[in-house]
Amino acid sequence: MARKSSTKVSRAVIKRLPRYRRYLKELSKRGVEKISSSELSKLIGYTPSQIRQDLNNFGGFGQQGYGYNVKTLADEIGTILGLDRTYNMVIVGAGNLGHAIANYNFYYKSGFRVIGVFDKNPKLIGEKMGDATIYSTDSLVEFVDRENVDIGIICVPRENAQEVCDKLCFAGVKGIWNFAPIDLEVPPHVSIQSVALSDKLYALAYHMSEENKKK
Amino acid sequence: MARKSSTKVSRAVIKRLPRYRRYLKELSKRGVEKISSSELSKLIGYTPSQIRQDLNNFGGFGQQGYGYNVKTLADEIGTILGLDRTYNMVIVGAGNLGHAIANYNFYYKSGFRVIGVFDKNPKLIGEKMGDATIYSTDSLVEFVDRENVDIGIICVPRENAQEVCDKLCFAGVKGIWNFAPIDLEVPPHVSIQSVALSDKLYALAYHMSEENKKK
Repeated sequence: MARKSSTKVSRAVIKRLPRYRRYLKELSKRGVEKISSSELSKLIGYTPSQIRQDLNNFGGFGQQGYGYNVKTLADEIGTILGLDRTYNMVIVGAGNLGHAIANYNFYYKSGFRVIGVFDKNPKLIGEKMGDATIYSTDSLVEFVDRENVDIGIICVPRENAQEVCDKLCFAGVKGIWNFAPIDLEVPPHVSIQSVALSDKLYALAYHMSEENKKK
Repeated sequence: MARKSSTKVSRAVIKRLPRYRRYLKELSKRGVEKISSSELSKLIGYTPSQIRQDLNNFGGFGQQGYGYNVKTLADEIGTILGLDRTYNMVIVGAGNLGHAIANYNFYYKSGFRVIGVFDKNPKLIGEKMGDATIYSTDSLVEFVDRENVDIGIICVPRENAQEVCDKLCFAGVKGIWNFAPIDLEVPPHVSIQSVALSDKLYALAYHMSEENKKK
């Protein structure tokens, strides 16, 4: 199955891929083997032409009059997204958010493993969070280096977030998942995704007040 | 200060406003009173012309050769975003994620109050989560109606998410903040924002694997 270089794929398409994969995995779990773009459209909410266009970016998995093979497509999207391997992750900050992330069910737990949690509070050290043990932040750099940690998850207060980010990057992570409400600077070779929870809440408030004006 | 109707403002601009507000609040806290679009650009990363264009949507708060009044602009953006009032919120699902949200510092705690948490586990009922008490899900509809709850925060597993969403909408919430990894249906008058945590993680994995190909 020939695939175009995914580096040419637009950010917008990439952003939609996890959603495609989520639905396809669900269909596959329910035993659905084939699906047409119009059936997929009803489920996922994008138009059939949008779906065909999006998936054509990857060399056309669909066959005329047949549709898509659900499992193959889910797997291919997984490969494109880089989900065909395992990622070692650490969480820094063993507060409530760290707990939530450690225990979050990463949707079929696909390859993402939290292998250590770090906190500066000596009382927490040695305790378990999810399947991982809590260690002292003092040992963060050494641990990340030794265990080939790929992703650092930042769940510390914003005041400490850049310092923690610097340590993680110095120690060799390739990706940062940031939950602190602050923009972090990373070296060019490190990828970063930030989840500004309050920004989502503000967007909700905006849409609610717009809705209210209609009355 | 004349302001154009914000209903005409594009979604892209609205999405950027919480970020502007976040930086302006921070500057205001540090005692900064005035800022030019080029100074703001260095901090926030958008180009000065983008900043001027964005903020001109709201009737041009900036004055030539003077720049923006930091506090006024932050307040105005707050008003646009509907943050000049209080929102009563409930959390459904007293698991780790619910805990994290209940204890999350909503950035200067601007007007968003969690006034109740709901769970179906009888053992949790009566306990405290953050400042709020945990109640039985059986009393959700009655509570939302009586206390004029504005926003329902869904932190239950995906299997139960639509049912909880239906109850919240039936009981009269105007907004849903959904953390379950599933697309929920809401009536047209209800606003919804979903945070699909795993989608962000997948996007991170994608960017990491693209970065890796460059080597």
